Amino acid sequence: MSYPIITIARTFGSGGRIIGEKVATLLGIPFYDRALIQITAEKSGFHAAVVEQMQHKKPASLLYTLSGSAMEAPLQDQVFFAQAAVIRELAEKGPCVIVGGCADSVLEEKAPILKVFIHAPLEERAIRTKEVYKAEAKDYKDYVKKMDKKRKAYYDYFAHRTWGKAENYHLCIDSSIGLDMAADLIMRTAKELAEK
Amino acid sequence: MSYPIITIARTFGSGGRIIGEKVATLLGIPFYDRALIQITAEKSGFHAAVVEQMQHKKPASLLYTLSGSAMEAPLQDQVFFAQAAVIRELAEKGPCVIVGGCADSVLEEKAPILKVFIHAPLEERAIRTKEVYKAEAKDYKDYVKKMDKKRKAYYDYFAHRTWGKAENYHLCIDSSIGLDMAADLIMRTAKELAEK
Repeated sequence: MSYPIITIARTFGSGGRIIGEKVATLLGIPFYDRALIQITAEKSGFHAAVVEQMQHKKPASLLYTLSGSAMEAPLQDQVFFAQAAVIRELAEKGPCVIVGGCADSVLEEKAPILKVFIHAPLEERAIRTKEVYKAEAKDYKDYVKKMDKKRKAYYDYFAHRTWGKAENYHLCIDSSIGLDMAADLIMRTAKELAEK
Repeated sequence: MSYPIITIARTFGSGGRIIGEKVATLLGIPFYDRALIQITAEKSGFHAAVVEQMQHKKPASLLYTLSGSAMEAPLQDQVFFAQAAVIRELAEKGPCVIVGGCADSVLEEKAPILKVFIHAPLEERAIRTKEVYKAEAKDYKDYVKKMDKKRKAYYDYFAHRTWGKAENYHLCIDSSIGLDMAADLIMRTAKELAEK
């Protein structure tokens, strides 16, 4: 059997994307992160900036939808479904690593998948956001918390379950054990599942 | 540096105890599960049956405490604190694996620790409860869910945080990837942390 599709969800600044790329390199399989946005834009006709923007928005509440800006929620839904279709297509091509996009939920019925969640202490994430991601913010801890809130709202809304709840994933790793170590654990698990 | 203290919390029937024992064997360090109850009983003077019973009870709500059975909540608290003292003593002796007892929370300030949470799909846990633990129940899925509710209530009350929330642990593993594989991942992480 071949490797499972590896989906990675992550708290902001935890290094989940970096870990995902390492895993893809270790296993010699494709890696989709920002490429997902580009492919979704090409296939759907939405501008890449719109696709990206819709992932960083809190889904509109019903109240908000009814209040006047009625187009916003449907647009976010449309972009999500276009991206979900792309994720399913990529998964059908063979083993790969997909970061974000609620891929664990999108591919749930399309086993075999290895669902991973990466997190890290707030302090460490604030430092990575400043020094590695070079984001601009007054208070990096606040910035990280705000990004997390959006990700949680997006995931909970589109995946219909709780972001960061251990039982939703096969592996949850605190990346403070080391990014290489985290990638190693995921790689080993993928190899083990491939042998099953 | 030596191995960290490894604490294992787990959903009922997930095989967390079995995994913990494997890890202890792999690393050649002591394993405390039921022994914790025995030692707590010896040190505190509480009967072992009482110590055990108090861990399987949902902590009494304030309303319940005020309603008449006023002694029950304090007794559970007393047993918890006696056991917490034992956990701290064991941890001071050197690296070991501790299952249950909210050990992750008890030892939080006593780094280095490696906090692990083990879970598994309900179906698999129901089968293990019947076939490996030989528990007697009419409906094994219901039985597992009820035990989980008690564990969650106990942990949330005494650890002051959410049971099974990924961010509370360094590693969360779905044991359906294999008990040996889960033990291997924990062992490797402990070795990595020992080298840091």
